[in-house]
Amino acid sequence: MTDLPPDGPTAGNGTASGAAARRRGRPPRAESADTRDRILTAAREEFSERGYEKTSVRGVAKAAGVDPALVHHYFGTKEQVFEAAITQSFAPAVEAPKAIEEGPLDGAGERLVRFFLGVWENPATRTPLLAIVRSAVTNETAAAVFRRIIATQVLRRIAGRLDLPDAELRAELAAAQLVGTAMLRYVIKVEPLASADPELIVARLAPVVQGHLTGP
Amino acid sequence: MTDLPPDGPTAGNGTASGAAARRRGRPPRAESADTRDRILTAAREEFSERGYEKTSVRGVAKAAGVDPALVHHYFGTKEQVFEAAITQSFAPAVEAPKAIEEGPLDGAGERLVRFFLGVWENPATRTPLLAIVRSAVTNETAAAVFRRIIATQVLRRIAGRLDLPDAELRAELAAAQLVGTAMLRYVIKVEPLASADPELIVARLAPVVQGHLTGP
Repeated sequence: MTDLPPDGPTAGNGTASGAAARRRGRPPRAESADTRDRILTAAREEFSERGYEKTSVRGVAKAAGVDPALVHHYFGTKEQVFEAAITQSFAPAVEAPKAIEEGPLDGAGERLVRFFLGVWENPATRTPLLAIVRSAVTNETAAAVFRRIIATQVLRRIAGRLDLPDAELRAELAAAQLVGTAMLRYVIKVEPLASADPELIVARLAPVVQGHLTGP
Repeated sequence: MTDLPPDGPTAGNGTASGAAARRRGRPPRAESADTRDRILTAAREEFSERGYEKTSVRGVAKAAGVDPALVHHYFGTKEQVFEAAITQSFAPAVEAPKAIEEGPLDGAGERLVRFFLGVWENPATRTPLLAIVRSAVTNETAAAVFRRIIATQVLRRIAGRLDLPDAELRAELAAAQLVGTAMLRYVIKVEPLASADPELIVARLAPVVQGHLTGP
């Protein structure tokens, strides 16, 4: 039999999965969701400020004001905490396939460029995306997590809408034009691209992205 | 008047510019070039392994087996050491404008894509480029140095060859397609792009890059 734990905090020395339960029995559902959100918010901030390598589960726990065991309980390993954090940060970008779906296929290029620039022009969505890019470029584990999310949540869903041979490669070459534009405009900031009117960029990139998606 | 310094090493406490001269008078020219090369090699390795932020002039000096004052003497500040290091690492990429110049303008797109993939397919040139991208994405000062080099050494020279309105924006949007392809193929490694035959990528990207450079 297993004993119910005494109420109140204990040292974070147990295995991860049962930690929250051991702390004070299973927490009420509302409080559980609240704690999980607080940890996730802290994780996003830590990964964003420090990058993947310098962030620790202990640091996330401290920022959230909880025991490290509780972070493990809700999310698992550091890699899994990162995946949960970037899935949330990446949520706006995951809407990209909808830009393809919401109209005729021959306007998909322009809708996708507009959607992509909209996400990057808005600091509230740009900042977490930049943090993901920084972690993915500098750490293999972070890159693998990002690769999995971008492949399953964005590229394959766009490809599925195309119904053409090489659909995945098409989606990726279209994404490459957009990703490279973001790198040069928002990260490296080369002029005149960095200051160009978004409408000019839409005009230049829409036919290129359309060509990748549905061209011969 | 200025006194000639005594021979032999002194503590690295002087100003940067005269440090080498003070150490043992002006070194013979061959030895000077050799020391400079050794520092530059050490700097490239340090920046590549640690990234811009974690690399210090002291660490570069230690790796090169010289006094930190000698690093300052030959290169100046950490930012200037970085600029010298990435200028050398970036040297293969700086040949890109030649790909435009070496033939008729209507084949420039294909030549540029072939050149770019050649640099990235070769591990000897890919590794230092990856190191630059990592530093530029994670540090503002490194990004500014990279921006200056890419703008003056590559983009403006390509633009100068085009003789068209918006030549710089054209060069940048072409570069964006290539940079994004490198990000997805070599850094994030999404499939099928990561394993695609380079000839297939040339076939898909050449008309796009040509369109950016010389299209309507």
